[in-house]
Amino acid sequence: MQKLVLLRHGESIYNLENRFTGWTDVDLSEEGFRQAEQAGQLLLRNGFTFDVGFTSVLKRSIKTMHIVLDQMDHLWIPVKKSWRLNERFYGALQGLNKQETIDRYGEEQVHKWRRDPHESPPPITDQDERFPGHYLRYDDLTYRELPLTENLSETMTRALPFWHERIVPALRSDQKVIICAHGNSLRALIQYIENLSDEEVTRLDIPTAKPWVYELDDRLNSTKHYYIE
Amino acid sequence: MQKLVLLRHGESIYNLENRFTGWTDVDLSEEGFRQAEQAGQLLLRNGFTFDVGFTSVLKRSIKTMHIVLDQMDHLWIPVKKSWRLNERFYGALQGLNKQETIDRYGEEQVHKWRRDPHESPPPITDQDERFPGHYLRYDDLTYRELPLTENLSETMTRALPFWHERIVPALRSDQKVIICAHGNSLRALIQYIENLSDEEVTRLDIPTAKPWVYELDDRLNSTKHYYIE
Repeated sequence: MQKLVLLRHGESIYNLENRFTGWTDVDLSEEGFRQAEQAGQLLLRNGFTFDVGFTSVLKRSIKTMHIVLDQMDHLWIPVKKSWRLNERFYGALQGLNKQETIDRYGEEQVHKWRRDPHESPPPITDQDERFPGHYLRYDDLTYRELPLTENLSETMTRALPFWHERIVPALRSDQKVIICAHGNSLRALIQYIENLSDEEVTRLDIPTAKPWVYELDDRLNSTKHYYIE
Repeated sequence: MQKLVLLRHGESIYNLENRFTGWTDVDLSEEGFRQAEQAGQLLLRNGFTFDVGFTSVLKRSIKTMHIVLDQMDHLWIPVKKSWRLNERFYGALQGLNKQETIDRYGEEQVHKWRRDPHESPPPITDQDERFPGHYLRYDDLTYRELPLTENLSETMTRALPFWHERIVPALRSDQKVIICAHGNSLRALIQYIENLSDEEVTRLDIPTAKPWVYELDDRLNSTKHYYIE
């Protein structure tokens, strides 16, 4: 039996300001730092150890991972970062206040953008300052890989290669793994791991900085899952 | 022309308490955190960017790297950690107060232990709680690789494979590299890069958290070096 821990980053400044974040690289809020410390303490008290960590290239996840590993005296483990674990790219909604967006587009449309796996927010253009092609950290991506918008299904499609190529080999060689990522990249992984329907994944709500544990059999089939608290 | 930045970690709690540290995994002092922030700001203001970072498996270096990269908005770069960049293993002196050690063994002997490249501090045994074989993070090392004591020459011998196998390939593929490590592992790298004699390396003093820059030609020969401040 193999355990895998998923962790959403602590509260960010945009969570606090109720804005759509996506790939905007906002920092943790003070509460977010505190939440990350608590998550680390929880994992420590429950006897967890890790051999490797995986996270996105966004600082709210990288810092959450750092704080958690520091609390566990685990800073020395390798941590791999990939854009494939980034939050869903929220297109033209990135940076907008969620309430203002509801006022403008209506509650139903915004709910669809947020939860319907096949509904994409309005795209940006590659001239937009939010276009990832302008940032050094995305230099390795092909033009086709650089998103203008993403629905949840597309987030899953770009996250899964990292799952298959990096995380699965670690799990199958019996490494203890922690993944620190984002609401929607984790939702995508969870949909895949548990083979959830679109309907089921829509109802999934992932709180910040609460460690979510999978117990996996030899074929990485989930036999049990739970929050530790 | 290729630039390489070497950085000693910020002041640690043992630096502050004037103790021999070695592989003891002590944290940064408050001053150490501040020094690391300043180093990051200095590198940022001087227009440095990095593609990859290398550090030890000791938290004072890992944290210094994290703080520097955070200041530079560079947390997303890959950071590789290796025990080969650890501080020199100080044997039975680890944890002892430097003044008490001088009182006990005499100034001359302590100076030799600190600076003579071929003088090893008294060894521990593998029953000692300081023996690295007791720690999870050194599980990958063979018994022969686990130190009981180290002189500077031995530190260089175990650090250089990491230089050749990991750092040189990064430099030769034109990656911009920062190494955050320790007084003696950096001294070992500097002795190798500049081809210094034992006599010259003895006089080398490396201050905490001051970025040391090498300009290297195509064959990684040092053409210029300086502190930025």
